[in-house]
Amino acid sequence: MLPRVTAVADLSTPALVVDTTALARNLDTMSAALPGARLRPHVKAHKCTELAREQARRGHTHFTGATPREILGMARAGLGDDLLLANECVDPVRLRALADCPGRVTVAVDSDATVDAAAANGIDAVLVDVNVFLPRCGCAPDDAPRLAERARGAGLDVRGVMGYEGHAVLVPDRAERAALTAKAMERLARVAEKVGGDIVSAGGTGTYDLNTAATEIQAGSYALMDGDYGKLGLPFTRALAIAATVVHVNDRWSVADCGLKALGMDHGNPAIDDADVLFCSDEHLTFTPHQPARVGDRVLVWPAHIDPTVAYHDRMHLADGPGVGAHVVDMWPVDLRGWDL
Amino acid sequence: MLPRVTAVADLSTPALVVDTTALARNLDTMSAALPGARLRPHVKAHKCTELAREQARRGHTHFTGATPREILGMARAGLGDDLLLANECVDPVRLRALADCPGRVTVAVDSDATVDAAAANGIDAVLVDVNVFLPRCGCAPDDAPRLAERARGAGLDVRGVMGYEGHAVLVPDRAERAALTAKAMERLARVAEKVGGDIVSAGGTGTYDLNTAATEIQAGSYALMDGDYGKLGLPFTRALAIAATVVHVNDRWSVADCGLKALGMDHGNPAIDDADVLFCSDEHLTFTPHQPARVGDRVLVWPAHIDPTVAYHDRMHLADGPGVGAHVVDMWPVDLRGWDL
Repeated sequence: MLPRVTAVADLSTPALVVDTTALARNLDTMSAALPGARLRPHVKAHKCTELAREQARRGHTHFTGATPREILGMARAGLGDDLLLANECVDPVRLRALADCPGRVTVAVDSDATVDAAAANGIDAVLVDVNVFLPRCGCAPDDAPRLAERARGAGLDVRGVMGYEGHAVLVPDRAERAALTAKAMERLARVAEKVGGDIVSAGGTGTYDLNTAATEIQAGSYALMDGDYGKLGLPFTRALAIAATVVHVNDRWSVADCGLKALGMDHGNPAIDDADVLFCSDEHLTFTPHQPARVGDRVLVWPAHIDPTVAYHDRMHLADGPGVGAHVVDMWPVDLRGWDL
Repeated sequence: MLPRVTAVADLSTPALVVDTTALARNLDTMSAALPGARLRPHVKAHKCTELAREQARRGHTHFTGATPREILGMARAGLGDDLLLANECVDPVRLRALADCPGRVTVAVDSDATVDAAAANGIDAVLVDVNVFLPRCGCAPDDAPRLAERARGAGLDVRGVMGYEGHAVLVPDRAERAALTAKAMERLARVAEKVGGDIVSAGGTGTYDLNTAATEIQAGSYALMDGDYGKLGLPFTRALAIAATVVHVNDRWSVADCGLKALGMDHGNPAIDDADVLFCSDEHLTFTPHQPARVGDRVLVWPAHIDPTVAYHDRMHLADGPGVGAHVVDMWPVDLRGWDL
């Protein structure tokens, strides 16, 4: 898609801006560490089929999604070689749409209800989702073999197991992160043996090089990064900011037009380089720049959490470098947003 | 717009659900307190022209918006009698679109740059936005007369002043809220005298009956309410929830499909009746229900902050009462989302 303007400084704001140099470096670094099918990139982090295409170009053609819409969008974009809905779903309309979509779809199951819904609505293949100490989805380890049997009895191909060590991925201390991951994967490996199948799917950006037990890693955030993952000392750099315009300046603070409706706020305030962020309102960000700002200036706002930030925006603008002086070279729709089929 | 299903319990989730009984009561209560032009409803809270139409039917035909898109959307929907952009804008393309739109548009100005941008791009009328102790936009009180003169010199109609006591609207103690409001409005009234014009625009849901100095109140949240405003003892009740489906149950917690991409999180976790919310992930909400849940059950999730919650959703479903047993009677697009013109 052709961008409307050619300079980051001319974008109507707030606007997502991707530094293509940093993005390419992140994608290449991860591909070197986890080549081909060792990585099953999670599209929930960017919700963008064009970005997924860059991941596929680097050899990762199996993808992870968190919603039926993400899976369907990927299949319709021709990226449906091997799609995993790493989430539980009992909506018959959505499951039927996944079963009928132009791609190979596997869904996670962790209960009788999710197995039965998958089987009743034409799904071919499942992974048994096992709780590995994150208090969220996943069956009890002891229940996994029974669920696998129930699935096979209903005609489903049980391709293996998954288990997300989400409680570990953001732990700052690497040794502690490694220990939590090892404990989680020990449990998952034990279950995998009893369940059967080839796949042990797990992991995230924070454990991509620590989780050696899984056959595939579901990392997503590494591509664009964010404030929280930035604290872990990983070899990935921040690649996505929000361009904002300064709309008010006084001698004590300044205000930019990037607020709560442009930012995922669950991990707290965003950051601005050479400035302190005070607070965000619906359409405003109040901050104190270390150098005086002027009304009309552009600033880059770095979100604390990428995933829910991207989900607020229609598109991301591709820039040929960092900073507001870069040129806009392309525009990618954030086309996997929302929940509609 | 016709809803796809007729029962809240049949909606694909997550889905915004409005209790029309509570909404009508909220709208009527506010209209009785602030009839006609005493209220200038703020559409940023709901971003929905159909809801604005309900406010207009009750006699409030002057509206407030926070973005050019909100103002343009209102004008195009035939709700452009008197629209106030209660925000600073220096984007020439957006200002020109406001100047050319089929409605009467007034914009806030608080600096030379915003006055000059308004005048240069065909805007007819402005309010001088005065800082009334919230650290955000608004000029210094002493600077307001000079800005008004500059605006009049550039051919702009200076209709009066605005000043938002946003630091007061959510203060729990009513007496303290009243005192902060009085102090802010004392400053604004003093400036209004020097600036001239008929309008003193201020206020919000939390100060709607305390701010007697303003000629018009910019309240928006009162229509749908949310967790934070719900703590103030106002005569408005919560009218918007998110219907979610339980996708996982075990003997210690349950998980519903309403996460960070369906919820404004700046005010913290949402609530579920008869349950404790533990945490939210991108597409999950982990909670402990007081009564056992089953996979497939529907629950209503009450957001802590309405405005950034609504901004994640394409539409709101209108229900004929509270609870998941209600019927869906209509569907309203959230058509003022985003920032595109």
